[in-house]
Parts: sequence; C-alpha cells; structure tokens
Amino acid sequence: MNRTRDLNPARLSAAYVNEVRQQLTQLGQKPRIVGLIATQDEPSLAYARATQHKFEDVGIEYELRHVKRLELEQHINEANNNTSIHGIFIYFPVFNSQQDDYLRNQVDYTKDIEAGSRYWTRKLYANDRSAAADRPDDKAVLPCTPLAIVKLLTEIGVYRDELKPIAGMKVSIFNRSEVIGRPLAVMLSNDGGHVYSFDEFGPLEFINAIASETDITRREALAQSDIVITGVPSPAFPKISASEVRENTVCINFSSVPNFEDDINTHTDTYIPRIGPMTVAMCMRNTLRLYTIFHTRP
Amino acid sequence: MNRTRDLNPARLSAAYVNEVRQQLTQLGQKPRIVGLIATQDEPSLAYARATQHKFEDVGIEYELRHVKRLELEQHINEANNNTSIHGIFIYFPVFNSQQDDYLRNQVDYTKDIEAGSRYWTRKLYANDRSAAADRPDDKAVLPCTPLAIVKLLTEIGVYRDELKPIAGMKVSIFNRSEVIGRPLAVMLSNDGGHVYSFDEFGPLEFINAIASETDITRREALAQSDIVITGVPSPAFPKISASEVRENTVCINFSSVPNFEDDINTHTDTYIPRIGPMTVAMCMRNTLRLYTIFHTRP
Repeated sequence: MNRTRDLNPARLSAAYVNEVRQQLTQLGQKPRIVGLIATQDEPSLAYARATQHKFEDVGIEYELRHVKRLELEQHINEANNNTSIHGIFIYFPVFNSQQDDYLRNQVDYTKDIEAGSRYWTRKLYANDRSAAADRPDDKAVLPCTPLAIVKLLTEIGVYRDELKPIAGMKVSIFNRSEVIGRPLAVMLSNDGGHVYSFDEFGPLEFINAIASETDITRREALAQSDIVITGVPSPAFPKISASEVRENTVCINFSSVPNFEDDINTHTDTYIPRIGPMTVAMCMRNTLRLYTIFHTRP
Repeated sequence: MNRTRDLNPARLSAAYVNEVRQQLTQLGQKPRIVGLIATQDEPSLAYARATQHKFEDVGIEYELRHVKRLELEQHINEANNNTSIHGIFIYFPVFNSQQDDYLRNQVDYTKDIEAGSRYWTRKLYANDRSAAADRPDDKAVLPCTPLAIVKLLTEIGVYRDELKPIAGMKVSIFNRSEVIGRPLAVMLSNDGGHVYSFDEFGPLEFINAIASETDITRREALAQSDIVITGVPSPAFPKISASEVRENTVCINFSSVPNFEDDINTHTDTYIPRIGPMTVAMCMRNTLRLYTIFHTRP
C-alpha cells in the first residue's frame, strides 16, 4: 500500500484553482456569478458561503442570493437576461423532484457553469466537442462533478499520460443520474475504462461511451473493479465493505451520505470520501471558459 | 346524484376524434407518426397496438417500431432528422429514471405530439401562447394528458362556458410531475380553479397559474375539493376513500394504479377511473396541429 499518496481533495485541486486565478489576472476582468440558494438549512448555507469565498478568492465576483424556492425560476430567468451576469450556480436540491431538473435546464447554456443542463450533457453523449454552432473552435465544457472525478484520478496518478488513460481498467459506478452518473460513465469509458453503471433498477455496461445491457451483479462488478465510485444519497443503500473490493481498488465517494463502510479506510490505500473542493474548482474553471467563449467576444 | 352522466372516456372523446378525422380528410394529406416501444410487456404492447389502430383510423400513418431501450435515443434522432416523419410517440416508462426525461426532451418540438418536452411546458408556465418565434400567429400545443383532463371536465359539464370556467372551485391534484401534474395545476388554476397540488414532499397551492407555499393537509384539501384528480403510479399511495371526499366531488384517476378506494363508486356520481382514450384523442389533435403549423408550410 502506498500510504504517502495525498488524498485531500482541497490540496489535489490547488493547481487547478491557481490556474484559474492566474488566467483571470492575465485577463484583467472579473466574471460575475450569481449563486442561488433556496434553503434555510444551516450546513447548506455554510457550504454556500464557503463556495462564495472560494470564487471571490480567485477573482470571480460572486453574489450569493437567498431566494424562495418558488421564486427561483424567476431569478434564473432574470440572470439569463442580464448581460452583466456571466454565470449561475444553483444549490440543489431545491424541490427534490423533477422540478429540480426543470430548473437546472432553465439556465442559459452560456451561463451554466455547472454544465448540468441538457445542452452540455447532450454534447457529451453525442461526442460533439464544440461549444456551440457559432463557436466551432471552442471546446464544449463538461459537467463539473464528473470532471472533478476525472481530475482527481489524474492527480492521484490513476490516469496515465496516454490517449486512453485508463485502458484495461474496470470501473463500477453507483449512480446513473443525468447530471453525474451517466456523464461520468460516458467519460470514463471514453477514456478506456470498462464501466459498470448501477442504479436502483440495475446495471448497464459502458465501453467506448456506448451503453449495453448486462446482468452482472454488484458483487461480481466490485470484485473485478480497479476503481469504484459511489454517489447514492440514500441511507438505504447497502454500504460497500472492504470484503467486496480488492486491496488496490481506488474508492471515491461523492454522495452526501457515505456509501462505503468504515473498514474501507484500512483495506485500500486510496479512499477519497468527498470530492467537493475539486468540484468547486471545476465550476470555477468552467466559469472562466464560458466567460471567455461567450462573454468576451462579439 | 346524476347517474345519467356518461363517464366513458372513449365516448367522451368521440367528438374530438371525429373532428381530427374530418380536418384530415379536408386537408387531403396523411401525417406520418413513428411510435417507439422498448418493452416486451404484453399489456404495454397491446396498448401500443390499440393506439396505432386509433391513429390509423382517423387517417394518420402510424408506424409502430419495436426497439431496444438503448437504441431509443438513436431512433428519436433519426426521426427528428427525417423530414417525412411528422410526429414521434414514445411509450414510457423506458428506463423509469431521469433518463426517460432526457429521452422525452430529445424529441424535436415540431414533432412532439405528446407535448411533454420542456419546449412546450415552458411555454405554458411562461404564459407564452404562440407556437414558435417564427410562427407568432399559431397557438402553442398543450401536454396531452393535462389537456385530456380539461376536455373531460368540459364534456361532463364541469367547465362552464365562461372566461374562467371553474372559477370558485377547489381542486386537489395528487401528482406534480413535470409532464402531467404541474402543467395540469397551472392549466386548471389558469381556468379559475383554486388548486392544491400534492407530491410525496408535500403540497403547493396554485392560483391564477402562480404557485405558493401552503401547509394544508390532504384531509383538509380533500374535504374542500370540488374536483379531485389522482396520478400516483405507486401501490404505496394510501387510496382516497369515500369518507374523505364530498358526495358531489368529481373524481378522476389517470394513474395506471387505481388511487381511489372502490367505495368511491357508490359515493360520488362522477368517478372517471381512466382517461386513456381522451389522452390519445388529444395526441391526435396535437399531431394535426403540429403538422399544420410546422410541416405543411415553408
């Protein structure tokens, strides 16, 4: 086991954060973001203040706006139409229902710094690499949480410096949401991984970004996996224990609820229980890119 | 009680079906629809064949295509790009997850005969009555299931021939999905109803298409309601019993699972346990309208 590997997501994100800071200094302009929060829940508010601070620290203006959930759509529409606002960040969950997906897709794609709307995921699924029809030379942005996981795998040395950086590796992902799990399965399989993607209705297999049916079980998939990534925000999910994964398996949890048993800590040398700081770093990176592509040129 | 009221949704939809048939005869052209089904479930296949027959019967070409669920998106994209196809009907559920919402929104809005994609619901929520920016004189279509419920209320005489046809009436709706429950709450409150909308996370109140918070209970809402509409596709939903609603309450269930107890039958004179035929009629109506607006003119 390689216990010297640094697994702290804040430290692992530092280089990306610094890159954004430097590029913004060179640019000499401050993108302006509106963060919309519709809850009174204190941990959520604390998280919102922390993101605000991080954005401001790299040179992005960040207005944190406390709104009623039933007024959130109106705030999104106003921010979409306000040319002095360059990005919108929404603190989900809001309704915890399909309505959240509706809200996510109300954000104008040129201001969708989380890249969670269909405009961007559809590009990923269709392997369309350009940001827009009228911006053919600019690269599309990627959803910030899946991108954060790819960057963590890069920083801890799992990604090799090759065209297919995880070729030959097997990956299990528990979550197939449209915002995180499915884009992540597509990205990791694009990068050479053989991905088993589980949701509450069963598994799919992704190879070279193409999904196919499989009847593999959780136990079989975990026993083969080099990388296991979990994001099930439910205490009902049976946590993954050390006995289910190999000693050298890289384990990453992005759910607010821990999806691994505590014994994972002493079993594998690579367990990353939270990825938040890297996700925020990728949001800032997307902010800079969307600003450059859509808001600094005619 | 007015036991003579005809509550058969097939008979109640007949006038709308005939209107579509006549207009298509006058038009002298046959719109061409592709129905996509990705299940082997026999009741679903029987329903699909029945819809196919109904569409063909009014003069719409209807190709029923059996596809694998993982190839459904590709079929949608091909149908979107095929100028000889004028409408797309998808038999949901497919994945039974957020991916179904993704697929629904892959349908080109000019071919979305169910009007379940965000393009059309967003217009409804924004009170934007025109079909498209380049079709300002054509009216937007409405999602077929909520529209079917409005037409049922019209046919059984609950809607009055006034600007606000259900002014003064209270309505409880159990379902706030983005495809049915929320658009329905907006439409019925636009028409004068005071709507209580329940989902698993609680109630909202809709007045004049504006949602607001409320802490009304199911019991209180039901006791006041002139109209109760249910669409909870879960056996875990506690069925609504006769003791919860008034004798003259109009009860409509659109869920595949009955959401009312059997005693509702002898308690109220107006219980419509299924609305399918009217929904199909509204889909055919939307087919004709989208065809006229988008596929018969330059």
